[in-house]
Order: sequence, then structure tokens, then C-alpha cells
Amino acid sequence: MAGQNRIRNAQLRSKIMTADQAAALIPKGCNVGMSGFTGAGYPKAVPIALAERMNAIHAAGEDFKISVWTGASTAPELDGVLAKVDGMELRLPYQSDPTCRKRINAGEMDYLDIHLSHVGQFVWGGYLGKLDVAIIEVVGIREDGSLISSSSVGNNKTWLDCADKVIIEVNHWQNEALEGVHDVYYGTQLPPKRKPIPILSASDRIGETGLRCDPNKIIAIVETDAPDRNSPFSPPDENSRLIAGHIIEFFGHEVKRGRLPKELLPLQSGVGNVANAVMEQLQNAPFDNLTAYTEVLQDGMFNLLRSGKMAFASATALSLSPEAAEEFNRDVAKYRDKLVLRPQEISNHPEVIRRLGVIAMNGLIEADIYGNVNSTHIRGTSIMNGIGGSGDFARNSWLSIFMTPSSAKNGAISCIVPMATHVDHTEHDVQVIVTEQGLADLRGLSPKKRARVIIENCAHPYFKPALNEYFERAQKYSHGQHTPHILDEGFTFLSEWQADMTARDAWKADSMVQADAWK
Amino acid sequence: MAGQNRIRNAQLRSKIMTADQAAALIPKGCNVGMSGFTGAGYPKAVPIALAERMNAIHAAGEDFKISVWTGASTAPELDGVLAKVDGMELRLPYQSDPTCRKRINAGEMDYLDIHLSHVGQFVWGGYLGKLDVAIIEVVGIREDGSLISSSSVGNNKTWLDCADKVIIEVNHWQNEALEGVHDVYYGTQLPPKRKPIPILSASDRIGETGLRCDPNKIIAIVETDAPDRNSPFSPPDENSRLIAGHIIEFFGHEVKRGRLPKELLPLQSGVGNVANAVMEQLQNAPFDNLTAYTEVLQDGMFNLLRSGKMAFASATALSLSPEAAEEFNRDVAKYRDKLVLRPQEISNHPEVIRRLGVIAMNGLIEADIYGNVNSTHIRGTSIMNGIGGSGDFARNSWLSIFMTPSSAKNGAISCIVPMATHVDHTEHDVQVIVTEQGLADLRGLSPKKRARVIIENCAHPYFKPALNEYFERAQKYSHGQHTPHILDEGFTFLSEWQADMTARDAWKADSMVQADAWK
Repeated sequence: MAGQNRIRNAQLRSKIMTADQAAALIPKGCNVGMSGFTGAGYPKAVPIALAERMNAIHAAGEDFKISVWTGASTAPELDGVLAKVDGMELRLPYQSDPTCRKRINAGEMDYLDIHLSHVGQFVWGGYLGKLDVAIIEVVGIREDGSLISSSSVGNNKTWLDCADKVIIEVNHWQNEALEGVHDVYYGTQLPPKRKPIPILSASDRIGETGLRCDPNKIIAIVETDAPDRNSPFSPPDENSRLIAGHIIEFFGHEVKRGRLPKELLPLQSGVGNVANAVMEQLQNAPFDNLTAYTEVLQDGMFNLLRSGKMAFASATALSLSPEAAEEFNRDVAKYRDKLVLRPQEISNHPEVIRRLGVIAMNGLIEADIYGNVNSTHIRGTSIMNGIGGSGDFARNSWLSIFMTPSSAKNGAISCIVPMATHVDHTEHDVQVIVTEQGLADLRGLSPKKRARVIIENCAHPYFKPALNEYFERAQKYSHGQHTPHILDEGFTFLSEWQADMTARDAWKADSMVQADAWK
Repeated sequence: MAGQNRIRNAQLRSKIMTADQAAALIPKGCNVGMSGFTGAGYPKAVPIALAERMNAIHAAGEDFKISVWTGASTAPELDGVLAKVDGMELRLPYQSDPTCRKRINAGEMDYLDIHLSHVGQFVWGGYLGKLDVAIIEVVGIREDGSLISSSSVGNNKTWLDCADKVIIEVNHWQNEALEGVHDVYYGTQLPPKRKPIPILSASDRIGETGLRCDPNKIIAIVETDAPDRNSPFSPPDENSRLIAGHIIEFFGHEVKRGRLPKELLPLQSGVGNVANAVMEQLQNAPFDNLTAYTEVLQDGMFNLLRSGKMAFASATALSLSPEAAEEFNRDVAKYRDKLVLRPQEISNHPEVIRRLGVIAMNGLIEADIYGNVNSTHIRGTSIMNGIGGSGDFARNSWLSIFMTPSSAKNGAISCIVPMATHVDHTEHDVQVIVTEQGLADLRGLSPKKRARVIIENCAHPYFKPALNEYFERAQKYSHGQHTPHILDEGFTFLSEWQADMTARDAWKADSMVQADAWK
């Protein structure tokens, strides 16, 4: 920290204090908007100090909770510590922290699962209540008081505009050279005053590099020096590589048929192993001058930028491995012309996604044989992380692809099921489903045709007979034959079939033991 | 017909023929794009002649089917006759014909249920196969060969652009003075060439009044003189009036809190009795200078235009009662400055809907206690009509309202259910649910809070105890407490509870008889 002065506005320097002092300024029961998107650019000191304060207050027998709004998921230093001390009344719009998830599913805290593009307008519309405090991580404060976002933009603009009071964390670990990477659009309005968002290609810059902030709202500035979550990069596993291979082959097929340009269309990709595998395989695929219009830049996409395969990436956050983050920090100047970080209301804006014709690639928890996708709930009742931006992209994309290994829990559970226990993406929004087994192109197919191609191309061979049996039974016994179902079997058929199989296998094994005994 | 010459292009006059002659030009197995949206502007002679031809061919033991693409629903003269002779292989994207529905649900024909805004880009993308023939109803043909749509625009532009061959029906019943009402935008493109759709308010005209059509593609012109379906207007029933009342009250509340401007925002409204009731009550509500950005102009909205309460309406079709249609035809000049009919890819365009901040009001079949909405399927398996434009509007609107009577089939079935048997609008897209019982504002509520307010405000009193019982049981027994459910009871709980109630009522009645006997 020493020697660097990242707070170039003299008036604001007087507001520097410790995280404990800043945390003491946050009132009980208030709504707090924090920076942070996919483990990037979240405040790293004040939430910890706040959690400690809550702990002390709880120990004294008093209640102290806040509602936490962010861009998307954060890290143990934010969601983790606050969930551990039971300090959150409500969390929105996306989280992926184990303790947080546990509390939500135990019914101990509320969680609002909102499309990421809707958050801004919900707050502006006043539907979520008043935003009391914003806590925003930045790389620096300019002379004019404007703020430079760090590794994510997320909802920073909305929080700063709407909050009564602002706490800033200046993180010296984040590279100052990030200045210039961001593009904060100040042309949004409430209807009926809205104008077109003037983005015609992923690389268009339409805003400012800094965040405006009324200096009188700033009540504290805390200096930090800590890295982002920066999860280590795990190389794609076999299933991810197979899924990626099917997608690349499909792209080739579409280009050949003239249905996609040879540089494809701007790519959006969820986070994780499969997404990284797709990016890795694009490295050697016959498509050049790729672009991305997405939420998060992971290692796979970063490598495409580095090699020149990808000409430009638009995102709202950087979610890199420690190695890639280090390299990016070292060479950030090299990437400034190839990368823009936008507010999530723009990165996920339906208007722009539709106009650019984005290719949306998102993961799922389960898909049913008719193409309804569950991205959020385990067994229809427990939240996993939330819908995130998948709905923003899938609905308005040119091509909406959902990808998953065909089974989970070491093969014990089929990700292709008779009937999804929760639906986040309806049959109307799911065009392609891919598993390691193959790819189902559902465009132009009626429900029964979709079922055949999903079971045939995507289901794991172990579960295929069961899914076919359900589909045959449904066609025999379902009253309606548009989307044949047996309602009281839809959720249980697979597990009962599996129990039968296990019993049969046990009987078989037993028979063999007996047969051996007779030898 | 006599004396009027609506075909002002001499070259094209040579292509006039009978409907039978035109129908004979349609090959077996082809894809046919027809005009028509909500019973307006559909071809009225050629489909009937084609059905007769099919019938004769079927009687001779041969097969003859086509795939029928339209704007939305049509009428007995199109869907009815073709479904009756089993002449459709596939139907898309929306239908409401009883015979058609019966065949789909019997598994005798395919039906593709697509967002109305997606149809154009799916066809341009080649995902639905080649469009062989277009059959388009117009009010006239200009000297330059351009065509004047009749009472709907729907997908006419896309069909004319994409079809190999074109058959035109010139309908003398439709008012020639419709010329000038349409606004056909020719600026759409495939990505990556898309530009912003330059509509900033519902009344903006951005296109041409006529449809371009290569005259060499026109293979037949048929003259007709027949009215649109024009269903009689039925005055709102008590439930519709109550629903409308709750919505108007809600609007007032939102205006008062500064969350809606006092002229509201552009209204979208599905078709039917409830929609008409809302429009009727707006007549006396304290909101002026209303606008609509919607699909269909029904009597209710027409009356608002006539009285001056509504300043402008943008739609893609007129679906009026015979009386209103007659009046509109008589006074069309009066409405030309207050009304525009656009292609459905523009009327339903996510970009424009989001920008204008449309208030979306759509019907539903069932909503579950967590706010997931089923708009398409009876008991999860039989199609009713299709999703139509409800998804285009609900997802991208400023305010998405779903409305329904709380029960159906004379009170035998609850429209609020524990778990929706099919989901077309997910919990993320449903902001307000209204029944005659009341209104549930779901904005900012987590699932369990939504359940409480939906059951309390919207459920029919008869079903309320059962829904509460399910919800309590679910909170007791559900593994996950984010969205508590008992999966193997979700679809059956209500009907079993009803059976119990019936048994108890029978027992009670029986007891009373016995008690009487003892007197």
C-alpha cells in the first residue's frame, strides 16, 4: 500500500478509516448493496468486520441482520462470513456460498432469485425497498471523485446512484491499470424515457470509464490489499471435453449450412468446467475473430484473447485463476483494447443480446425429455445458486444452448429426467441440449419429437431404457398426447426404476454367489 | 365486388383465378405460411378449397397434408376446415380451433408452440425448413405491386419475403381505407447486422404502409368478400369485473407511490373477457392519454380510442365484434392517426417491449403457490392454445401481470394449485397475479412469502384451506425449505382433498337424513 496514492481526491482522503470503523456505520436491518460478481471485485474487509460486529451483538443477545444485494456470487469473505454469523435477512440476486445455501434451504434466510438484468430496474422502480448503504470495491478514486471499478462492475452504478450512504474499499491488490477497461453507461432511464442502448457490436464503448459518485454520500473509505477469490483452474474433465466437442462440431455444421457466420456470433458462456472446455477447444477450431458478449471472463476465454483467436470480449466481471489473474495484472495494457467490463444491466440487457444475436451457453441441473430446464433447484425444493443471467441470455439469444453431463453424483442420478421438478427455462426457450453423450437440436421439433432426440442423443446409456419406458408408458396412458406425461410418476419413475435395478442387480449377484457355491 | 378495382397492377390482374384453381397449385407436403392473427386477416377461400381437394384425395386413398404457419389463431374457415379433413401435418405458432386442438391432443398432428416474436427469426434462420407457399389476405394491390394487409399484419412480411410462391386473397369485405394504418418495418436483419429498432413510443411509425412482394412469385390472386371471424362481444361477467377492479386499484396505488406515470405505461393485454373488462373500467378510471403496445385491438381498447381516453394503440391485429368492426370500417379515417398495425416481430419485439416499459396483462390456466404460471397445458399434457405472445411481453415488460378467475369449471377446479403441471412463465417472470378474490404483488418476495400472499389474496375461499394445508405440510416435510414441496403430492393434493370433502359432505348429508329420520 505504501507509496501508492490511489485516492487522488484530497477531500475524500479525510474519510479513510479502518474496516471496523466503517462497519460500525452500518445500521441494523438496512439494505446494503455490495459490489462483486462471480468472486470478483467484492469488498473484502468491511463485510468481515461487520460479521464480527454482528457476532458480538448476537452474543449479547441482540438481533442484527441486514439484507445483502450484490452483482452476483461473491466469496467466503462476504457471503461466507455473513452467513456464518446468521447476519443476512435476505440475499439477492445470486449466490453460490455453501453456508449461505444451507441457511436458505433450512428456511433461515430469504433469497430472491431474480434475472440479473432485472435487478437494476427493480431497484430503480422501488420494488425492493430503499437501498441504504453501498459498499463498493474500487482500484482508485480520481481527482474529480469518480471511482474506478475493480475486477467487476456488476450493479455498482445502480448501488452508487441509489444508496443513501456509500462505503468505498480501495483494493491495492487490484491493478490500477484496470482504469480504462470499464464502460459505464449513463444513458439508462425509467420508461417512458428510455432510448435505444447504442451497442451494435460487442466492442462498442458507449459510456464512461469511471463511476460517478456524489462525494457527500461517501461515509467511509477503507484501504485493502487482498486478492479476489480466484479459484484455481481445473483442466476440463473427460465429460466436459466431450460436451465441448459436440458443440464445436455443431457450430461447424451450422457454419457449413450458412446458418452461422464463420466467425460465429458473440458467445455467452456460464462459468465452470464445461464452459472452460468449450473455450479451450475453440482455440483449435476453424473459427477466427471470435467475440464474446457475456457476463464473466474465465481462463478459457482469456486464453482465446491472448492467442488472438478471440478479437474482443465484453463482460461484467473477470473470474480468473490465480495464474491467469497474475498474468492479466502484469499485461493489462495489452488487453485494454480487447476487453470491456460493463454494468450487468448492459451486459445482460435483452435488447443488446437480441440485437447482437448472442450464442448463449449455460449449464443446468436437470432437463426433462420435453426440453424444460431446471437450473436452480435440487429436487424442486432446495436452491443451488440461482438463475443468474441464464434467463437473460437464453430467452433473447440467437441460439440457446444448455449443457450438462448426462448424469451426476458419480452416475447415480440422471440429469435427463421425465419431468423437471422446477422449471427456469421453458420448452419455448431451450433450443439445444448437449451432454457428453451427444447433442439434441430441438429447433422446429414438437414435444414428442424433442423427447425422442433428447433421450436418444443426450441420456446416459444406463438411464436410457428407463426414460424410453416412461415415454412409452406416457404415450399409452397420458390423457393428452401433445406432451404425454403420467403426472403421478413423473418425479418418481427414475428413482423407482433405479431401486428395481439395484434389487435385480443384488439378486443377480446373489444368484451368482449361489451358482458359484454349486460348482 | 363489382365496380371496385382493388388490383391496381395490370400485370397482376392476369393472375386472378378461382379459389379451387389456386388451391390446385399447392403441392402435397409443403410448408404454407398464411396470414391471420386472432381471427383477423386470414385467407377465407383458398384454405376451404384446399380442404375440399384434400378430402377428395384422401377419399381416393391418397395422403395429402401440409404444414400450416400463421401469425396466430385463425378461424373455422382455415384451421377448422383443414383440421377436419386431417390436412395438417404440423401447425405453428398458435391456434385456438377446437378440431385442431383435438387432433393435437390425440397425437394426430404436430404442434410447435413458439414465442410469437421468435417465429420470424426461426424462419429466416432456416430452422423450420423452407417456406414453399404464402397465402395472404390483403385489401388491395397497388400499381407498384405492393400489397395492403387487411385487418392483421402478423407474419405477412416474413412469409412474402421467404416463400417461393405467393397466393393472394383480395378481400372486398375488408375496408380499402385500411391503407395507411399498417407500418411494415423493412429494417430487420439477421445478426450480426442488426440495428436498433427505432421505436421510442407506441405511436412511432418506422416503416412502409405496404408489403413488398416480388410479382413473379405471385402464382394466383383470388377475390373474396367475407367478414373476419369477428366473435360477438360478450359483456364482462362478474369475475372479470372484479379482476379488472383490482388491477385498476393497483394502478392507482402505483401512480400514487410514483411508481407509474399518471398516463400509466403502454398497455399490452391478451384477448378475452377479462382483458375487455380491464379496458372497460379504464374508461372511467382517472388515467388519461393512455397508450397500448399490444398484439390485438379488441372492443374494449377500441372504445378507449373512440372516447379519447386512449391516445394511441399499436397492435398487429384488429379482433373486433361484428358491431365494432362495422363501426371501425365506417369510420376508419377517424382512427388512422390513433392506430398502427405492425408485423408481429415488431409488435412483440423484446427490445421495444423493454424500452417502452410495457404493462403486460395476460391470462393463465393455473398458477402455483410460488408464482409459476401454466398458460398452455391442461393437466400438463393437453395443449389449450399455445403461449402466443405472453412470453414476449411478460419477460421483457416493466410490469408483468397474470390474471384469472380463481376457479374454473363452475368452481370445481382451483386455478391456484400447489404445483403447476406445466410451466410457461417461471417464478422469475411473474410479478403480479390477480383473481376476482384479490391481487398478489409478488415483487421483492421470496418463494414462501409469495405463497402466503397468493393463497391469501388470490385463492378461492373453498380451496384456501386445502392450499394452506399443502403449504404447511410442505414446510414440515420438504427437504429443501427455499421452495417447500412434497413432490408426490404436488399434482394430486387438491383433487384428493376435494374427494375427501365430497365424501364428508355426502356423509354430512347422510347424517342429516338420518337425524331427520329420528325426529
